[in-house]
Amino acid sequence: MNKGLKEIESITIIGRGNVAWLYSDIMTKQGLSVNCISSRGEIRGDDLCSDLIIIAVSDKAIVEVAKKLEIGDSIIVHTSGTVDIGVLRARAKNFGVFYPLQTISKGIELDFSTIPLCIEGSDEEIFSLLKNLADKLSKKVYKISSVQRQAIHIAAVFANNFTNHLFGIAKQELEKNDIPFDILFPLISQTIEKIKENNPFEVQTGPAKRNDIPVMEKHKLRLGEDEREIYQLLSEKIIKQNEVLKK
Amino acid sequence: MNKGLKEIESITIIGRGNVAWLYSDIMTKQGLSVNCISSRGEIRGDDLCSDLIIIAVSDKAIVEVAKKLEIGDSIIVHTSGTVDIGVLRARAKNFGVFYPLQTISKGIELDFSTIPLCIEGSDEEIFSLLKNLADKLSKKVYKISSVQRQAIHIAAVFANNFTNHLFGIAKQELEKNDIPFDILFPLISQTIEKIKENNPFEVQTGPAKRNDIPVMEKHKLRLGEDEREIYQLLSEKIIKQNEVLKK
Repeated sequence: MNKGLKEIESITIIGRGNVAWLYSDIMTKQGLSVNCISSRGEIRGDDLCSDLIIIAVSDKAIVEVAKKLEIGDSIIVHTSGTVDIGVLRARAKNFGVFYPLQTISKGIELDFSTIPLCIEGSDEEIFSLLKNLADKLSKKVYKISSVQRQAIHIAAVFANNFTNHLFGIAKQELEKNDIPFDILFPLISQTIEKIKENNPFEVQTGPAKRNDIPVMEKHKLRLGEDEREIYQLLSEKIIKQNEVLKK
Repeated sequence: MNKGLKEIESITIIGRGNVAWLYSDIMTKQGLSVNCISSRGEIRGDDLCSDLIIIAVSDKAIVEVAKKLEIGDSIIVHTSGTVDIGVLRARAKNFGVFYPLQTISKGIELDFSTIPLCIEGSDEEIFSLLKNLADKLSKKVYKISSVQRQAIHIAAVFANNFTNHLFGIAKQELEKNDIPFDILFPLISQTIEKIKENNPFEVQTGPAKRNDIPVMEKHKLRLGEDEREIYQLLSEKIIKQNEVLKK
């Protein structure tokens, strides 16, 4: 980074995954100068003269890729939900994190302006430069420490990855009985509306919440082994949570 | 029911729970004649002269309440997701099921016209009368057998009750780290949009899907015991499901 850099204007993105694709797409649309390179190919000195270098590779490859770079004054960031900002310290003077909190699948349309961007900088000046860039891309920019980012990633696993699997089971149980999955969409939408306005634990409903043992037993009899194990564990945890609430 | 009844116009609702409240509210707004009584009080002969009697009580009380009634020609229905239509056979000539597929909490606003109503009748004539009534209340009326209804109820437990508990955990993990729950809302909305258009199993993302053991271990270390057990089991099931898909 040239001392006194006012704004990030040129960006090199290293990686070929979903995040690299997304950032490249959206930054190009914003009129920024974007240069995309693969982490596997040779990285030339020119590639590293950009104001910002984004390492958008898998968590375990971040350090390895960073080691290949002679970074100089550029700012270098990674895009991971779990990796500490500190892993870049040995490689650069100016570094940070630029983490998009979203589930990205190539080809599925996203309104990027609503994606929360979680920003961290090695110092206040770097943070400001990154925030400035982020504000051009999204309406939801958050200052998030590495510890907080890990908590967000864990929360996202529960709220996105795990719920997705449960929706998969729901669809499967319906289709076994010739019922279209979309019969559940109004219920799913309402579940989401409810948790936006309320503490989910306080608006819990269903057989486990009522500790309705005959219904739960009936359900378990109809499920396959994998689904039954999930049913059993989550029902137990709902019952337990409900007891905590009552206290 | 008078032979040749063309339309259900008068309704008695037995019960004081969420479903009773909801049906009473929406049927009254439709200009129907609605009479609400408690299942615990005395039930007078007059109450049972309605075209339709709705037993909107807990699953285990349905049979007990039905036994107290001298039903005659009226149609009697229950509103349960799990109880077989057959339990009413001994009590009435004309019977059925009128099950709203929704999570109902008193005081939380609902657009009733989007709630799927699952209808079953003791014969085609009764089914038609019930469907006719249901069509006045909702745009989404389904003919659903008792076996199918149980599958729907199970699917709803996964897609609504269990996901709600996972959202509660996500909120709790965020708030422990001073992060507002709403940072997750765009991610949650996109999860829902994705499963409406795709098979959830096929668009699964996250550490378990990638079988990223270091990340999963890191996450588990940060979780309390209950949350860790859920994390462990659901990750295992996602890994297993992913192997099924690959075959």
